[in-house]
Parts: sequence; C-alpha cells; structure tokens
Amino acid sequence: MISIREVAKLAGVSPSTVSRVINNTANVDEEKKKRVLKVIEETDFKPNQVARSLFKKSSSIIGLILPNTNNPFFTEIIKYIEDEAYKQNYKILISYSDNNPKKEKENLDMLISMNADGIILLTSNENIKNEIKNISIPVVIIDRSLNDDNDLTQIVCDHYKGAKLATKHLVECGCKNIVNMKGPMEFSSARLRYKGYVDICQEMNLDIKTIDCDYDYESGIKSTKELLEKYPEVDGIVASNDIVAIAAYKVLDNKGIDVPEEIMIIGFDNISFASVFTPEITTIEQPMEKMGRKAVNSIVDFKKNNSTGESHIFDVKLIQRQTTFLKEDI
Amino acid sequence: MISIREVAKLAGVSPSTVSRVINNTANVDEEKKKRVLKVIEETDFKPNQVARSLFKKSSSIIGLILPNTNNPFFTEIIKYIEDEAYKQNYKILISYSDNNPKKEKENLDMLISMNADGIILLTSNENIKNEIKNISIPVVIIDRSLNDDNDLTQIVCDHYKGAKLATKHLVECGCKNIVNMKGPMEFSSARLRYKGYVDICQEMNLDIKTIDCDYDYESGIKSTKELLEKYPEVDGIVASNDIVAIAAYKVLDNKGIDVPEEIMIIGFDNISFASVFTPEITTIEQPMEKMGRKAVNSIVDFKKNNSTGESHIFDVKLIQRQTTFLKEDI
Repeated sequence: MISIREVAKLAGVSPSTVSRVINNTANVDEEKKKRVLKVIEETDFKPNQVARSLFKKSSSIIGLILPNTNNPFFTEIIKYIEDEAYKQNYKILISYSDNNPKKEKENLDMLISMNADGIILLTSNENIKNEIKNISIPVVIIDRSLNDDNDLTQIVCDHYKGAKLATKHLVECGCKNIVNMKGPMEFSSARLRYKGYVDICQEMNLDIKTIDCDYDYESGIKSTKELLEKYPEVDGIVASNDIVAIAAYKVLDNKGIDVPEEIMIIGFDNISFASVFTPEITTIEQPMEKMGRKAVNSIVDFKKNNSTGESHIFDVKLIQRQTTFLKEDI
Repeated sequence: MISIREVAKLAGVSPSTVSRVINNTANVDEEKKKRVLKVIEETDFKPNQVARSLFKKSSSIIGLILPNTNNPFFTEIIKYIEDEAYKQNYKILISYSDNNPKKEKENLDMLISMNADGIILLTSNENIKNEIKNISIPVVIIDRSLNDDNDLTQIVCDHYKGAKLATKHLVECGCKNIVNMKGPMEFSSARLRYKGYVDICQEMNLDIKTIDCDYDYESGIKSTKELLEKYPEVDGIVASNDIVAIAAYKVLDNKGIDVPEEIMIIGFDNISFASVFTPEITTIEQPMEKMGRKAVNSIVDFKKNNSTGESHIFDVKLIQRQTTFLKEDI
C-alpha cells in the first residue's frame, strides 16, 4: 500500500500538504492541490485511518471496555450499543479487562491513543476516576457507578428499587425465610441490591440471612450449597443475578427440592436465558436496550455540544415467571 | 495532553527527531537527544500509540471480527482468544459484522488502517478472499472455511465427522425417523454437518428428512414447529447447534412431548449452557479452547517466521447427556 510520504514525493509537495488536501483543513495552492489529487488517483492511494486520525482528532470509534464474557448481561448489552453506534456512524471496538485494573488501564490507554471518540466502561475500579478526569475524550460508566462527586456520566438501572421489588415479591408469595445471595460488595450494583433486600426485611420484620456470592454460574453453584447448609429453613432466594438464580435452581433440582413449591427463586437482569431456561426464571428486568443506546448517545451528544456528563438511573420492573408463585395462583 | 509537535517545539527540534528518539530508529545527535528527553520528562509526555504505530508498523493489536452476539459459541471462544493474546503480549479488539459484507469490510479496513498485527475473522463471505489476499497482515479464518485454493489460514473443527457422530448416536439410541435441522447452507459448517447427516442416513438406509434453520434461538423455535407439522413421525432431531437444540426442547416441552422418551435431541458445539440447561443437552463438542489459542498463535508465528498460512481441522467428540439415551441405559 502506498504511503502518504510516497504520494507527497510523487506530487513534489510535503506530506503535510497531502494531508491538508485529504482532510480539507487549510487552503492549499490550487496547482499543488491538482498535483496531489492526480497522484492520489493514479496510485489508488487510500488515506491511512491512523494518519487521518492524527490530523482530524477523530476516529469515529467508540471503545467499550467490559469485565469478561462470564455474565450474559455484559454480552447482551453489546448488541444495543453496537446497533446504536452503527446508526450514528460510529464503530464499536470491544476489549476485556478481567476486572484487572492493570488491564483496564492498558485498554483505556490504547483507546485514548488511537483517538477514540469516546469510551463506555463497565468497571468497579474506583482508582480509574483519576485517569478518566485527565483525559479529553468522553467516558461513560455503565451498569455500575463510582463513588464520587465529580461529573462522570453514569448509566445505571435502579438496583436498589429492583432488590426491594424482588424481596417484596417473595414476601407476597408467602416466603418467611428469605436468603439473599449477595453480589461482590466492591460493586455498587451489589451494594444497592443488598440494601434493598435489607430494607424490605426490616420493614417486614424478617431476619436478614445472607450468603456471599459472585455474578457467575460457578460461584452460584458453590454459594447455593453453602446456603442450604447454613439456612436449612430457607423458602425463598433473592439471587445476585439470573445466572446465579439458574445455578441455584440446578443445585436444588439435584437435591430433589421442588422449585417453586418448596423454595422460590428470583434473579436480576432478565438476560435472554432467564426466559429460555426450564423452569423460566422470575426476575427483575434491567432496560438493557435503553441503557445501551443512552450510553452511545451520551458520547455523541458530548461530541456535538461538548456538554458535561450527567447520570441516568433507569427504572426496573418485576417479571414473574415459573420460579415463584402467588398463593392465589394455586 | 501534550503532542509530539509541542515536544519538538519546546526542544527546538523537528517532530521526526522526537519520534526517532522515542522509537530509537536512527541516530540522533546526542545533544538534541538530551534536549528531547528533558522535555519529555518535564512535560510527562506519553508517546501517542497512533503516532508510534505509524513508525513501528506494529500496534500489538489483534482484531477479532465476529458475526454477532446471538450464538454463545461466538462469545465463548472470545475468552480463549483473549487469554492467549494477553499471554503473548497482544491486545484483542473485537468488532461485529452482523454477517453484513459491507460492515465486515469496514471493520477489516479499520483494523488494517490502525496497523493491527493480525485479524481473526469468523465469516462466510466468499468475496472477502480478494480483500484478504491484498493485505499484508496475517488473517486467520475461524470456525468456517472459505472455498478456495489459496493459502488462507483456516481453523475449524471437523463438522462432517461431528454430524456423523451425532446421527450415528441417534441411530444407536433406536431412532428410526431422524430429522436434521439444517444450518444456513451458505456456511461451510452447515454444509459439512448436513453432508455428515446424509451419509449416515444412506449408510443406515434411513430416509433423509430436513428442515431449514439458522443458528439462533428464534429460528430454532420456528423451525421446530414446522418440523412437527411436516414430520409427525419424528423420533430423533439432529439440531443445527446447541441453541437450536434448546429451542427444540422448549417447543416439545410446551406441547407435552417427552424428551428423550418420545423424541431425542442432539446439539452441536458444547456451549456452556448445554450442560447448564435442564435437561442437559447431548451434543458434539468443538474444542473451543484449542481453536481459540491456535488462532492467536498462528498470527504470532506469522509475525515471527513470516510463514505462510496453513489450515487446521480440530477433532470433535460426542458428549452424551439427558436428551438422548441408549436402550441399555433403561
């Protein structure tokens, strides 16, 4: 592939003149411009996007940094982010951090240095705030929020309300011994869901019973086994998310415990598999599509208006399926 | 953030001298070098990766272009590609093509122009071959193969053997009316799986019965309903993949048809959900981890030895679970 330097040489001008012609950024002598365009046509030169982004300070790229592929929620939200970005003439480039601050910083640096137009970040790493404050491109934090008082753009669902709805639903279904499989407390989503559970228990005079868990299937299996040892009286489980709810079902089913007759289960997120699984999982729906599209539009709006970030909390709703039932359903 | 131009100005040298110092690509007058390094230290200048990649012709980036997020196989293989790349000091940037040749070409061009060190591509677009031949960076085709006689690097599992194993297994389980839910015939994976099914039917003197399907859940639901209308005698289903096998189960379960007692089902891929689902899905396992790691290593080897591409066909195996049973199991 011919380079901008070779085009410049053939046209008898400097490389920066070639780039001024390509990007139309400054007046170029008409005669020189003609020579450059002739060489471009003759050599079938395609301006290098890397080189262009150096001049134009825009790459039409939005970076998306996700923790991993273990939680289908992360994968499902990609679809909407991708689709909205494509509509707005942006490309999405996805990288994974493994919840590893070093890897996250490397991904952030990579996207900054390729002049991404914005970054959508799913993180719980509080230290990343200082990085974000010092860069000139818009960053949107999605799903989780960072504790601070600055003007980060954060897009989350109402985790607190969701957990209250979930716990209240189990109470209404007649559960008296409701155990919360808590997500990791370093994640704002997990802290807020835990608080929602606790507040309903207190309101309803129920004992608070918890088991530590993560957001993936393997930890769901392990924690459910612990749960049954620690709380043999359990009749309702508020799982940390849908994948953990599915894991809980698997453990109970293997032990011959009937769901929902003996123990009811409710998840969180409403991933596709929640409705595909047998039995279909009762859950709290996060509006993934709205959240994904909003994340992209926050970046596009920033580029247009240079507006400062603001946070958005999206409403959630209860989706009742086959792992819970109200007494009047019998 | 300070630019290379500003560093050059402060040091009283040209921008290309600054880049020569940063990249150590040519001798620079010692006195000038000192001035540049001093300015870099004083200004905390971080060399722009875009600018660096222009000089170094390497970005330590491997691009991964996938069709979409609808098939968990695509998502699960990311994990291994990511992990292997990280071990080899490469970063993975993922983009989606929606099986849309225009979008695929745009993603390919974007990765080329950012000087990616290699591209891993999951495609069925035969026209992309000419693009690939004309670019100087290594491209690995994964999961599907393109019909041609050139030296593309292709990494696939033995789809033909897998479908033979699947069909033979249903025969051994006593099925006499085996229907194949065919994947899209424009995909080499689907063509080979179909051929495997047909060859076993002919060997065993069984009628060939097929229904067109895609590789996603929604098409699985639709096609299973058609299947039951067209072939009410069905007692075994070779599904196009695991997601379609799960969809088939859902339709049968809703109609009160017992699996595996009345109809047996076998999938393909061995995605995580095949063993999580209730009932657990009998399937043909693709060695995703080996394939993902091999794709990365093919690119790394190419960079090291400039070796030409070669294709790799990985072996598959039958994983029997709860949607099929041998008579002697009763």
